Amino acid sequence: MKSYRKELWFKTKRRRELVNITSDINVALIESGIKDGLLLCNAMHITSSIFVNDDESGLHKDFEKWLETLAPEKPYSQYKHNGFEDNADAHLKRTIMGREVVIAVTDGKLDFGPWEQIFYGEFDGMRKKRVLVKIIGE
Amino acid sequence: MKSYRKELWFKTKRRRELVNITSDINVALIESGIKDGLLLCNAMHITSSIFVNDDESGLHKDFEKWLETLAPEKPYSQYKHNGFEDNADAHLKRTIMGREVVIAVTDGKLDFGPWEQIFYGEFDGMRKKRVLVKIIGE
Amino acid sequence: MKSYRKELWFKTKRRRELVNITSDINVALIESGIKDGLLLCNAMHITSSIFVNDDESGLHKDFEKWLETLAPEKPYSQYKHNGFEDNADAHLKRTIMGREVVIAVTDGKLDFGPWEQIFYGEFDGMRKKRVLVKIIGE
Repeated sequence: MKSYRKELWFKTKRRRELVNITSDINVALIESGIKDGLLLCNAMHITSSIFVNDDESGLHKDFEKWLETLAPEKPYSQYKHNGFEDNADAHLKRTIMGREVVIAVTDGKLDFGPWEQIFYGEFDGMRKKRVLVKIIGE
Repeated sequence: MKSYRKELWFKTKRRRELVNITSDINVALIESGIKDGLLLCNAMHITSSIFVNDDESGLHKDFEKWLETLAPEKPYSQYKHNGFEDNADAHLKRTIMGREVVIAVTDGKLDFGPWEQIFYGEFDGMRKKRVLVKIIGE
Repeated sequence: MKSYRKELWFKTKRRRELVNITSDINVALIESGIKDGLLLCNAMHITSSIFVNDDESGLHKDFEKWLETLAPEKPYSQYKHNGFEDNADAHLKRTIMGREVVIAVTDGKLDFGPWEQIFYGEFDGMRKKRVLVKIIGE
């Protein structure tokens, strides 16, 4: 069994941002030399997400509006977590969007359907945060 | 390490449908010959889901009503994604229900609790769509 | 490839509870002797969750209030599942919070960011329920 590990670092300009990281993950997979197995990609912070969806700007605006409806940022005082913090909404938004994805690796490639793209979802940005890529296989 | 890959194809009659695929996954597991490891099952499309829950028709009606409350299909114009498309709600519903499940394989079986069943959740159906099964282990 | 399997049992005192199980998972990882690979931890019941988030009591109260907003327990009659059951809301809450997490194992440790902790989320408690830990690697 071969194994590979890599960290990706992000510092977004805005509090919330969706970043397409598919090409970064493809680079990691090539570096690993693994042709067949499973790839785990997860946020290492609890106010950000990794998820698979479509790279379409309209949809990304829909996600922003929708998440604000389900778990609004303000007023900050609505959340008990927001004593010294102001990011309770980011914990909830990340819960909706998910911590991680597991992706099949076949013939040295991400075994994806036609529109699958991997995104880093930042919900409490403007500081350095990490994503883990772990691949096991042969 | 052994590895196995299979695609399952679906074309539902309605826009939204929940399909119990547990027996299909059991067949794939037997075909693989893998006795111990991990099984990944994921939708290959971004408007459908794979999830584990109960095979109970009342609950499935509750899911339908609940998802329509959280991410309603209509009016289509409420979503920026719906220019040439009408399926923005399906992207959001799939986000709630999840893209994938990872299931332990032990003694050649899905290592499940008493009521766990695997479902394909279709939220933009009436066309051919795929699900991936990938198993690694020994 | 090495493999390890363990069940954890829970019986919470209240219907809904969030239990930090990170130390239990660390014990399982040490018992496994696996230094590098993937760890799957999943609820074996369909009305409970495994998820990664912050061990902060204010946030946990926010989760309770938020989940009650998105999928309220009462009135029971609002759900078709609640004929002989009263736990339809627990199926929905578990869907939001997730069934499972997959965690990288590196150098014999959970490969976690600074605040990541693993929780058992019980949404229909006061009875014995199980969680599965499955680790594969070397």
